[in-house]
Amino acid sequence: MAKQPILTPQSEDFPRWYQDVVAKAELAENGPVRGTMVIRPWAYAVWEFVQRALDDRIKAAGADNAYFPLFIPEAYLQKEAEHVEGFSPELAVVTHAGGKELEEPVVVRPTSETIINSYFSKWVQSYRDLPLLVNQWANVVRWELRPRVFLRTTEFLWQEGHTCHASQADANAYALRILNDVYEDVMVNVLGVPVHLGRKTRRERFAGADNSWACEGMMRDGKALQMGTSHELGQNFAKVFDTKYLDTEGKEQFVWQTSWGVSTRLLGAVIMAHGDDNGLRLPPAVAPVQVVVLLVRDEDGAGERARVLGTELAGLHHRVQVDDRVDVSFGRRVTDWELKGVPVRLEVGPRDLAEGNVTLVRRDTGEKQAVPLAEASTRASMLVSEVQANLLAEATRMRDDATVDVATVDEATEAAKTGWARLPWSAVGEDGEDRLATASVSVRCLQAADGSLPGASQEDDLVALVGRAY
Amino acid sequence: MAKQPILTPQSEDFPRWYQDVVAKAELAENGPVRGTMVIRPWAYAVWEFVQRALDDRIKAAGADNAYFPLFIPEAYLQKEAEHVEGFSPELAVVTHAGGKELEEPVVVRPTSETIINSYFSKWVQSYRDLPLLVNQWANVVRWELRPRVFLRTTEFLWQEGHTCHASQADANAYALRILNDVYEDVMVNVLGVPVHLGRKTRRERFAGADNSWACEGMMRDGKALQMGTSHELGQNFAKVFDTKYLDTEGKEQFVWQTSWGVSTRLLGAVIMAHGDDNGLRLPPAVAPVQVVVLLVRDEDGAGERARVLGTELAGLHHRVQVDDRVDVSFGRRVTDWELKGVPVRLEVGPRDLAEGNVTLVRRDTGEKQAVPLAEASTRASMLVSEVQANLLAEATRMRDDATVDVATVDEATEAAKTGWARLPWSAVGEDGEDRLATASVSVRCLQAADGSLPGASQEDDLVALVGRAY
Repeated sequence: MAKQPILTPQSEDFPRWYQDVVAKAELAENGPVRGTMVIRPWAYAVWEFVQRALDDRIKAAGADNAYFPLFIPEAYLQKEAEHVEGFSPELAVVTHAGGKELEEPVVVRPTSETIINSYFSKWVQSYRDLPLLVNQWANVVRWELRPRVFLRTTEFLWQEGHTCHASQADANAYALRILNDVYEDVMVNVLGVPVHLGRKTRRERFAGADNSWACEGMMRDGKALQMGTSHELGQNFAKVFDTKYLDTEGKEQFVWQTSWGVSTRLLGAVIMAHGDDNGLRLPPAVAPVQVVVLLVRDEDGAGERARVLGTELAGLHHRVQVDDRVDVSFGRRVTDWELKGVPVRLEVGPRDLAEGNVTLVRRDTGEKQAVPLAEASTRASMLVSEVQANLLAEATRMRDDATVDVATVDEATEAAKTGWARLPWSAVGEDGEDRLATASVSVRCLQAADGSLPGASQEDDLVALVGRAY
Repeated sequence: MAKQPILTPQSEDFPRWYQDVVAKAELAENGPVRGTMVIRPWAYAVWEFVQRALDDRIKAAGADNAYFPLFIPEAYLQKEAEHVEGFSPELAVVTHAGGKELEEPVVVRPTSETIINSYFSKWVQSYRDLPLLVNQWANVVRWELRPRVFLRTTEFLWQEGHTCHASQADANAYALRILNDVYEDVMVNVLGVPVHLGRKTRRERFAGADNSWACEGMMRDGKALQMGTSHELGQNFAKVFDTKYLDTEGKEQFVWQTSWGVSTRLLGAVIMAHGDDNGLRLPPAVAPVQVVVLLVRDEDGAGERARVLGTELAGLHHRVQVDDRVDVSFGRRVTDWELKGVPVRLEVGPRDLAEGNVTLVRRDTGEKQAVPLAEASTRASMLVSEVQANLLAEATRMRDDATVDVATVDEATEAAKTGWARLPWSAVGEDGEDRLATASVSVRCLQAADGSLPGASQEDDLVALVGRAY
C-alpha cells in the first residue's frame, strides 16, 4: 500500500501544497487580525540568516542602519500625490490612543519615504552631507484583501533603504548598486534563486517613483515572484519635503533620491522556488540546521558515534544537530527533517556501523549512499556545498525551460499558463498590458535585448518578460 | 577666555545635559507623533551591538526567536484582569483600515503575553513540548504622557521572551537564569553598568505577574534606571488562554510561565551611567568605533602612517576609523569624537612623528601620552580593554559611594535626594511605599540581607533598595 502523502503534491494543487508545507513544517500561522502572521521559530531562523546576508551587504554598500517611527501623521502621506493615491486604500489608522480620540489620526507606516524625508530635509544642508545612505529594519502594514502567508500579508517585516544624492546619475548608480551587489547577490548566491533583473513598466512602478527596478524569480508553478525592488524617486519627495542642499557653487538644489526594499516575502521565495513534495529544500546558506545527524537506534555505541560526528561537523563550521530522540520512530523523524528541508542527513545506526559505515542522504536529490565512518563528516561537509550549488542550478534550469520567446500578446498569455514569455516590448505597450491584465498576466520587467539592464529611460529594443505573478 | 561648553554641565542641570548630548552626538530626535523617536545611525549602531550581545545569550539559554503580530484584538487584552487594567490607559487603537471602519478595533501591542498565549495554547500539548522558550525582537507602543527619548517613549524597540514550563520551580529557575546569564551579564560585562538584582514589590510588579525581578542601575545623577525585568507569570495567562499540557501521568495541567524584556532604554543607561561633560563615553564592547585614528595634518607622510595604523588596528580585530578630514579643524574633530564617546583616540601629526611618536588619548580619563609609533597599535589595543574595565569600576564606585544604609523611611527619602538608600523592608512596607511615593521615591527592589536574590516568596529579612527613578 502506497504511503499517504504528507503534503498535497505540487502537481495536483500548488497553492494547497504551499499551505500544507507552511503548516506541516511549522513555518507560520495566520494571526487573529486578518492578514497578519505568526512567524514560527524555524522560519524565523531562516529569516535571520537572510537578514544577516542582506545587512552585511547593505553595510558594505555604505548605508547605515537607523530607526524611524511606526506612526506617521496622515498629512505627511498626503503631500506626494501619487504616493497617497497608491497607499491610501491599504492604510491602517490609529484614531484613539491613551484613552482619548487623537486630534490628528496617525497612520501605521506602509513604507517610510514621507517620514524619513521630513528628517532628511533637516539633516541635509550641503553637498558635503551627500550621499546620505540610510537603511532600516522594520515592520510595515498594508491592509490586504487577499492575504497569503509570507507573500502578501497585512503586516510584514522588511528592510527599507532611503538615500539622497547630489545628481540623478548618482541616484541611478546607487539604486542599481543595491539591485546588483545586495539583492541579486543574496538571491542568487545565498538563497539559490536565479532572478531576472529589469525595469518595471509605468503601470507597475512604485507609487511616487520615476523608475522602479526589480528582481523577479520564478516559482516551481511557473509564476513570478517580485523578490525585491529598488526605486529612483527622482526629486518627487525632495520637492514636497523641501530636501535641499547647497552645491559646490553655493546654489540650492533638490536632492535626488532612491528607496529599496526586500521583505519576509523572500521566505515565500525560498519555499516555492525549491520545495518539493516532501517539504522544504533549504539552501544550506540559510538553513538553521545544515546537517542533521540522525541516530537510528542507540545500540553498540551508535549514540556516541553520532555525537562525535556532530562535534566534527561543528568543528568544520557547520550548523549541525544530533537527533537522538530514539523514542520517536525513525521514519517519523526522517519525514520531519525532510519537511523542514535540512540539506544533508547522516543516518547513524548499529547495522551500518557494524560494517564501518554511516548513510549519507542529500535532501535535494534524495540520493543515499553508504560512506565509511572515517570519511563521513568531510563527505557531509562537501555535500553541503554541493546542495547549495545544485539548488541554484536546478531552479535555473527549471526557469529557463519554462521561458519561451514569443511574438504577440496572445502567445504570451498562452505561455504564461505554464511559465514566462519573452517578447519585444514594442509588441506589448500599455494597451498590451491592459489585455494581459484581463488574463491576470503582467509584464514582470523590461530588459535590454541581451537580457541585461536597460538604461533608465531607454525605450527602444526593450524586451518584456511576461508572466503570472504572486 | 574659557571655552564655551558644548553641553550643559551635568552638575548644573542633568536632564538638560541629557537632552544636549542626545542632540549634539546625533543620537536621536523626537518623532512627529508625540513620544515617538527617530534613532539616528550612531545610536542605532550601539543598539545593534547591544542586540547581538543579548541575542547570543538568549539563544545560549535555549530560546528561539519568532515573530508575532503587531495588532492584537482588543478582546485578548481584556481576558487577564490585572493586565488590562495596567495597560488600558496606554493603548493605541486602530479603528479604521483598508478604507473602512473595523468591526472590532485592534490594539497596537504594548507587550505580547496575550497574543502569544493564544498560540502557546495550540502548540503545547504534552510535557514533551516543555519547556517552550520563545523570544521576539519587536517594536511596542505605550502611549506616554511624559516621554523622554530612550527612557520612556511611545514606541520603543525591545526583545520580549515568553516561556512555558511544567512546574513553578522550573519557571522560577528560568526567569532567574535570564536575569543572571543574559541581563546581568550584558549590563555588567558589555555595557559596563553595575546593576542590583532584586524582586519588585507588589506595587511595582508587572501587570499580570506573580513576581517581577529587576536589574536596577544607578545613573550619574544618583537616580535609578530599571534596565530590565524578568517575570514569573504563574498560571495567570495560562488559565485565561487555556494553555495546558498532559503531564507524565496523563493529567491535564496548566503551564507555568515567564516573560522578560529589555529595550532601547538600555541606550539611555549607557548615556547616563557613563557620559560626562564632554559627551558620551562608550564602553568599547558596544562602541561602533573603538579607536579613531585622527590625522592632524597630512604632511611628511602622516596620512600614510595614519592609514597603516588603521590597518594594524583592524588586524587586531578592533573597529577602527581613520579620520583624515583635514579640511575640518582638528579641534572640531576632537570635540566631535569625544561627543560620540569613542573610547580611544590616536592623534597622528607630523610634529609628533618627527620625534617617532603619536599621541594616545583615552576618552574615559582624558589622559594623553606620547607613544612610539611602533608600539602605537598594541598600546591602543590594550587601552580598549582598559577603558572597558575602568568604566565599570568607575560606575561601581560612584554607585556605591552614593548608596547609604538607613533605618527609616524619612532617612531614605532624604538619602534619595542624591542617591540610594538601603533599609530593612520591614521598616518600609506598603504604607512606607505610599509615603516614599509622595516624594517621588520608590522601592527599586528587594534583596536578601547580603545583597543576593531573595526567595520568590521570602518575606523575612529583606532589604529594600530605595531611590528616585526614571
